[in-house]
Amino acid sequence: MRYEEFRIEGRNAVREAFRSGKTIDKLFVLDGCQDGPVHTIIQEAKKREVILNFVAKERLDQISETGKHQGVIAFAAAYEYASVEDMLKVAEEKGEKPFLFLLDGVEDPHNLGAIIRTANLAGAHGVIIPKRHAVGLTATVAKASAGALNYTPVAKVTNLSATMEGLKKKGLWFVCGDMDGEIMYHQDFTSPMGLVIGNEGTGVSRLVKERCDFTASIPMAGNIDSLNVSVAAGILAYEIVRQRKFGGN
Amino acid sequence: MRYEEFRIEGRNAVREAFRSGKTIDKLFVLDGCQDGPVHTIIQEAKKREVILNFVAKERLDQISETGKHQGVIAFAAAYEYASVEDMLKVAEEKGEKPFLFLLDGVEDPHNLGAIIRTANLAGAHGVIIPKRHAVGLTATVAKASAGALNYTPVAKVTNLSATMEGLKKKGLWFVCGDMDGEIMYHQDFTSPMGLVIGNEGTGVSRLVKERCDFTASIPMAGNIDSLNVSVAAGILAYEIVRQRKFGGN
Repeated sequence: MRYEEFRIEGRNAVREAFRSGKTIDKLFVLDGCQDGPVHTIIQEAKKREVILNFVAKERLDQISETGKHQGVIAFAAAYEYASVEDMLKVAEEKGEKPFLFLLDGVEDPHNLGAIIRTANLAGAHGVIIPKRHAVGLTATVAKASAGALNYTPVAKVTNLSATMEGLKKKGLWFVCGDMDGEIMYHQDFTSPMGLVIGNEGTGVSRLVKERCDFTASIPMAGNIDSLNVSVAAGILAYEIVRQRKFGGN
Repeated sequence: MRYEEFRIEGRNAVREAFRSGKTIDKLFVLDGCQDGPVHTIIQEAKKREVILNFVAKERLDQISETGKHQGVIAFAAAYEYASVEDMLKVAEEKGEKPFLFLLDGVEDPHNLGAIIRTANLAGAHGVIIPKRHAVGLTATVAKASAGALNYTPVAKVTNLSATMEGLKKKGLWFVCGDMDGEIMYHQDFTSPMGLVIGNEGTGVSRLVKERCDFTASIPMAGNIDSLNVSVAAGILAYEIVRQRKFGGN
C-alpha cells in the first residue's frame, strides 16, 4: 500500500506540510482564530482548494492526537492523487479507448474501495471523485480496494460536471446508472466512456445527470428499491466490458 | 424487517426456546458442565443440528448480557429460515425456471446482506447457506440486505454438496465463479440454475466445485487478484439474467 492518512497538528507542522507540497485533504481550524500564522495557513489552504472546517475548541481537542494542536489540524494523504490528464495519457499509451469511473458522492469507504477494485479489474484507466460530499482515500478505502489503489489512479476534482464538460470535448461519452433509464443491454457503450455512479441514498445529482449521454438501468425483478452501489457499479462496468471486448449486442 | 437476533440466557429460558420451536443459530455452553439440565439442552441442540460451542467461563461472561447465564447462552433468530423445497415451489408457481444462489462459506455479514439484496433484484427464488463456516442471518446482514431479507427466502443446509446432488435430480445445473473457468459470456446459463459463490479468501471449496456443471470466470484486465465477493456475485447473477431475459448469446 502506498497510502496512509495522517494528522498534522500545530502551526509550524501544518505550514511545513503545505510548503513541502504534501496532499492535504482537510484542514480543521479553531473558529474565530485570526492571528498572522493561522491566517497564512488559511490562505494557503484556499489556494489549494483544501476543504476548510472552522470548528469549536472542544471538537479540535477531540480530533487531536497530541493535544497540542495550537488551533490547526490538517489531514494529509501519503497517497498521491493523479490528474485526469494522466489517466487519458495511460489509455492512449495502451492504445485503448478511455474508460473512466466518476463517483458522484459515494460516501461509504467500503463501497469506494470495492469500486476502485472493480475499476482495476474491469480495465478502467482511473477513478474520479469530487472534492466535496464524498469520502476521500482513507485507510479503510485502501484496505477495501484490496491493493487496487496501488495501480488504479484516483483524481480529485472540484467540480464533477465541469470535468465532464472538458472530457466530452476529448471524445468521452457518459453513462449514469439510474432506475428510470433504458435497460443497459439495449444501449451502446463501445465509445470512449465515463461511467457515473451516484450516492448510496440519493443517486446521481441533477447537474451531473444532465451531462450524461446515456441513462442506463439494471433490470430489476425484485421487491426492493436498489442494489448496493458497488454491486451496481460492477454490473454496469462489466456491461461496458462485455460490449467492448466480447462482441457487443 | 422481520428479522431480529437475540440472546437467550439461562437453563430454563434456553430449554423453553427449544420447546417452543424457535430457530436457534448457536449455543454456547460452559466447558465441562455435565449436569442433568445442561445435558438435556445439549442433546436437544444436537438433534436440531445447532452449532455447539463449549467455552470457558470468562468467554461466557463476556457474551452474557444479563450476567446470569447459568452456563448456557443461545443465539436465536426471529427470522425463520425457509426450506429449499419452498423456493422451488415459488419458482413453479410463478412459472419461472428455478434460479438459486448457493453461498459456500461467505463470512462477511455485509457481503451476505449485499448478496441477498442482489438475489432479490435479479429475481432469484432463494439463497442457500451452509450451517457451518458461514455467517448466519445477523442484524448486520438484515441491514445490509436493505429489506431483501423480508422477501427473498434463505435456507440453511447441513451439507451444501448433498443439497446440490438433490437439486440436480430436479433439473438444476450449477455454475460457480472461479478465475480458472471459461469466460462467462461463452457459456449457456439458460437452464434452471444454481449460482455458487465461494468464500472471500479461499473461493469455492473442492467438493462443491466438483459438483458444478460450469466454472465461469469474469474477465479481468487489472493487476489485482479478485473482485469483492458481492460484486462478483452481482456480475455473475446478471449474466444469468441477461441470457435468460435479454436474448442470450
